Amino acid sequence: MEPLRILDAIKSPADLKVLTYPELAILAQEIREEVIATCSANGGHIASSLGAVEIVLAAHRVLNCPDDKLLFDVGHQAYAHKLVTGRLGQFSTLRTYGGISGFTKPEESPFDAHPSGHASDSLSVAAGYAKAAQLDGSDRKVVAVIGDASLSGGMAFEALNYIGQAQLPMVIILNDNMMSISRNVGALMKHLGNMRADNRYRKLRDAAQEELEAGGAISKTLLDIGKRAKESAKQFFLASSMMFESLGITCTAPIDGHDIRELEDTLRLVLQTEGPVLVHVVTRKGAGYGPAEQDPERFHGVGPFDIATGAAKPKPAAPPSFTSVFGETLLKEGEADDAVMAITAAMEGGTGLKPFAEAYPQRFIDVGIAEENAVALASGLAFAGKKPVVAIYSTFLQRSFDQIVINCALPQANVVLAIDRAGLVGEDGATHHGAFDLVYMRTVPHMKVLAPADEADLANALHTALALEGPVSLRYPRGNGIGVPVPDEPYLLEVGKSRLLREGSDACILAFGTIAYRALEAAEMLANEGVSVRVVDMLWAKPLDEEAILAAAETGCVVTAEEGAIVGGCGEGVIEIMSQHRVQCPVTTLALPDSFVRHGSVPQLLHEVGLDAEGIAEAVRNLYLQ
Amino acid sequence: MEPLRILDAIKSPADLKVLTYPELAILAQEIREEVIATCSANGGHIASSLGAVEIVLAAHRVLNCPDDKLLFDVGHQAYAHKLVTGRLGQFSTLRTYGGISGFTKPEESPFDAHPSGHASDSLSVAAGYAKAAQLDGSDRKVVAVIGDASLSGGMAFEALNYIGQAQLPMVIILNDNMMSISRNVGALMKHLGNMRADNRYRKLRDAAQEELEAGGAISKTLLDIGKRAKESAKQFFLASSMMFESLGITCTAPIDGHDIRELEDTLRLVLQTEGPVLVHVVTRKGAGYGPAEQDPERFHGVGPFDIATGAAKPKPAAPPSFTSVFGETLLKEGEADDAVMAITAAMEGGTGLKPFAEAYPQRFIDVGIAEENAVALASGLAFAGKKPVVAIYSTFLQRSFDQIVINCALPQANVVLAIDRAGLVGEDGATHHGAFDLVYMRTVPHMKVLAPADEADLANALHTALALEGPVSLRYPRGNGIGVPVPDEPYLLEVGKSRLLREGSDACILAFGTIAYRALEAAEMLANEGVSVRVVDMLWAKPLDEEAILAAAETGCVVTAEEGAIVGGCGEGVIEIMSQHRVQCPVTTLALPDSFVRHGSVPQLLHEVGLDAEGIAEAVRNLYLQ
Repeated sequence: MEPLRILDAIKSPADLKVLTYPELAILAQEIREEVIATCSANGGHIASSLGAVEIVLAAHRVLNCPDDKLLFDVGHQAYAHKLVTGRLGQFSTLRTYGGISGFTKPEESPFDAHPSGHASDSLSVAAGYAKAAQLDGSDRKVVAVIGDASLSGGMAFEALNYIGQAQLPMVIILNDNMMSISRNVGALMKHLGNMRADNRYRKLRDAAQEELEAGGAISKTLLDIGKRAKESAKQFFLASSMMFESLGITCTAPIDGHDIRELEDTLRLVLQTEGPVLVHVVTRKGAGYGPAEQDPERFHGVGPFDIATGAAKPKPAAPPSFTSVFGETLLKEGEADDAVMAITAAMEGGTGLKPFAEAYPQRFIDVGIAEENAVALASGLAFAGKKPVVAIYSTFLQRSFDQIVINCALPQANVVLAIDRAGLVGEDGATHHGAFDLVYMRTVPHMKVLAPADEADLANALHTALALEGPVSLRYPRGNGIGVPVPDEPYLLEVGKSRLLREGSDACILAFGTIAYRALEAAEMLANEGVSVRVVDMLWAKPLDEEAILAAAETGCVVTAEEGAIVGGCGEGVIEIMSQHRVQCPVTTLALPDSFVRHGSVPQLLHEVGLDAEGIAEAVRNLYLQ
Repeated sequence: MEPLRILDAIKSPADLKVLTYPELAILAQEIREEVIATCSANGGHIASSLGAVEIVLAAHRVLNCPDDKLLFDVGHQAYAHKLVTGRLGQFSTLRTYGGISGFTKPEESPFDAHPSGHASDSLSVAAGYAKAAQLDGSDRKVVAVIGDASLSGGMAFEALNYIGQAQLPMVIILNDNMMSISRNVGALMKHLGNMRADNRYRKLRDAAQEELEAGGAISKTLLDIGKRAKESAKQFFLASSMMFESLGITCTAPIDGHDIRELEDTLRLVLQTEGPVLVHVVTRKGAGYGPAEQDPERFHGVGPFDIATGAAKPKPAAPPSFTSVFGETLLKEGEADDAVMAITAAMEGGTGLKPFAEAYPQRFIDVGIAEENAVALASGLAFAGKKPVVAIYSTFLQRSFDQIVINCALPQANVVLAIDRAGLVGEDGATHHGAFDLVYMRTVPHMKVLAPADEADLANALHTALALEGPVSLRYPRGNGIGVPVPDEPYLLEVGKSRLLREGSDACILAFGTIAYRALEAAEMLANEGVSVRVVDMLWAKPLDEEAILAAAETGCVVTAEEGAIVGGCGEGVIEIMSQHRVQCPVTTLALPDSFVRHGSVPQLLHEVGLDAEGIAEAVRNLYLQ
């Protein structure tokens, strides 16, 4: 029998309130072990969650959730929150098909106050809760936990600007784990560093801390005066950030984010103030797990690993990822033409830009979590004669839709939008699937949209995009390539021209992107059943290859296939072209459903939505036999 | 013969450099007269442009455009810029069909450095120019002029964060005309007010000013030391804003934005520094024109007016605008249910929310130019039981696409998105047409999309949207309603159910939104030609009324009509449904073309794109006779 853990006795946050500090320290350790064990098996955002264990425990001891609201920006930091809010029993299913989500998710638990996943949104949502409480005369407390990196997102600033003006009663815990600092992204991050380094505040804080611990005069007074606490708290904590103070938000001096008692005392105090307070908490990302502390960036989001060493569990040999092929190709393009630049938004590693950044640091820009700036900045570079390539995940590029339209497409700027993680991403789930880019790119005038089927054409597509005039986007999925050789010298693709992958006369699959290879498998299955299926790699989502579409219609049975949203997708475009030409042909459009797809492994999800080879074959079979 | 003006002699900015200060004062007056005369006839953004005359003159005297780059955020402020960059002769065509644009537009002039129109983007684009100059070792100077209101947009903050970190050599002129202050929007605005009020800076500045004017020691020294100027400039101007200084951007004390000499001296000085400098310039919006100075908000963007009094020129009697019907209906909904709230992003007047804001100030929120925060904030309010209605123009709501998907649709939050200015907006042109909302809303899972055809159904649609569970959007155009009576008691519309407006058997027009009335006119024309045309007001863009679509196909001739982008629009959705049901019917999809539509009056533009009654009739005729 397992030795009894404190963690096993925690059924809800209320159970935390009876624990002593030594018991809490043991609990924190147990939580870390649980998080490490589960992440070593399932992968996950381990470093952020390890860093936030004490913040979670302190906040839940002070708050009465779910009546009070505790929000986590991005939700990376919320694993401990999940463990103490009744999800210990399901925790081993983290990020697996049918299991619990890696982010907070209201459907999953009343303790999850918003669907986190996209950075920088927690302050706006928390402001909504706080404003509603104010209107209702409720004493609901609202606390948002946000990491330093998320603060660079413009919407966080927009929220701070509103929160400060409306003087909403809410607490912002800035979980400053210095990640952004290490990457030297953004002036704000330097400012945070200065705050941490300022000894004046530290000394004052330490003195105040002693008072608090002794239950001394200052804390007593502050706790007693209730409504009038605000001004005192201001004087007590002092303004350590003119930045936040400028916005009307009282800001505490940095405190130790691994000291539960200090966190609790601070939170209790600031929760009595009337207006907004930012509690500056300094944590170590990966705290309590050596390998993650030593390399927090690698442990930000990881696959399965060996607990003892932290080494990634060996994966079966596989072709290089689309991401790395993109990165290597861009490096070569950058060698050949020094106008080529690379821009990303806090996804240097994730988008494969490290080789380019190392070779051409001057031509590489990481703007931090700031997708709007990334795209508009690229337009300025393009106007000045550069060839910027903006590499961002599909789901986050949604933040830049307006900049794509106004700053890139309208002036026909030579900006290349490299859309990584397009289509289903797997374990990160609904907030992270790249579902909409084909729709929001296709509708933009002057935009050309490439959807290469394999890594060879990804190289050709990037080469082509850089050679074309005007804005061009190219999309490719998460994960390994198909295994085809990547050309040493990529060549120019003809605009709007598809590729015939397999001839066939009974039916035709028009495939957009990597799904073309699953379509080939489907065609092979159907060949065994005596059905001859043509497979066309459409390659371009805009402009569409009309000739290929009309030729497909001649088979009398057309299936379109794309890993993107069905409404407004390429399938509709194909049917529209047939209609324009008054061609009458039965068509089935295969695409992501008009709903949010859950998390799980990509093969599981593809099967669920009918976009694996079997699903494609079934669709062709049904249509052909109709 | 007209008396000769200095303005007539200015063919390019170079001509400004030979003028004396007294001549410049006369020129400024001539420019104001020209702007007032043209705007009184054509309408326009007069107040901002009058406030920025001296800034424009000073900047062009100091810079060498178009080699140097001068950017205007939004472009409201750029009329003087147009007048001194070779467009005096065309200025009377401002905002008219075939005439020059009301915003900066690179196609129009090499002096226009980016396509302005959407607030807060100038700093990102300018940063692109500055970074490119740095890489090229060019001494190109980059100056961006941004109003105080535009600073509340998150992307401006994202850009500042990057500019400060990269220490880009560029100058930001903060044109602080205190507009946002008067509307009490955002904590940042209060901070700017504090900067203006700080006497310490004012005194120091005045002393320094005297030195400068006397050609004294400080200015000489500063001008001489070239490269080393930065630190000195810092000490000279002093940090008047800890906010900007926190971000690594040197910030001057406020200077008089109507004193050309002071502006010039300051610009010359700061342009010699190595890193980014923000020049804080205080102007009076509407300066030099009494009526506009007295009511700058009304004169922000106006229609034609009487110069002597400033009174709007009488318009022909017309039905109330969609905007005002929306506002009145929301007021009633707010009376009936105190959970109803209204949120806008610096468009209180423009979206008709003034009556609601006056009646329920606590339930009204203007977040400033901050669309992302507006939508995510609404989701938080909805989670807390409120019924928020977010009213934003279609083109600006593009900024919130990600928040619509992640914060509203994914958790099925009860947020109503009221999309004003959907479709063609007329004189503001390409950056302002509401072209994409039908596409970007239709593709979002769980989203319901209403497109009422008239003001009666606008009231019903809002009533219905507030009663439904989950996110709902409704779109309606700029301008006057159709003239139908608005129901005192709006009723619930059946989800996904269209309305038959006119019976007919030869052909059917499926119309989305107010275009239904033009479709009726077309049907009337065609009736005279012996063609019997059914007209259906589809009312819902999502879900689509399949029954009405299939019934339409039975006529054997279907035309879809919508004032939105063609690619991914409702027309494609209609064809897709026919295809699903294997219904074979010729269809023509009428929609906005896959290109950017220019500016002009709405009737002119509708005619150009074939969406007036005549164009619709022609499309039906062509299809029917085929």
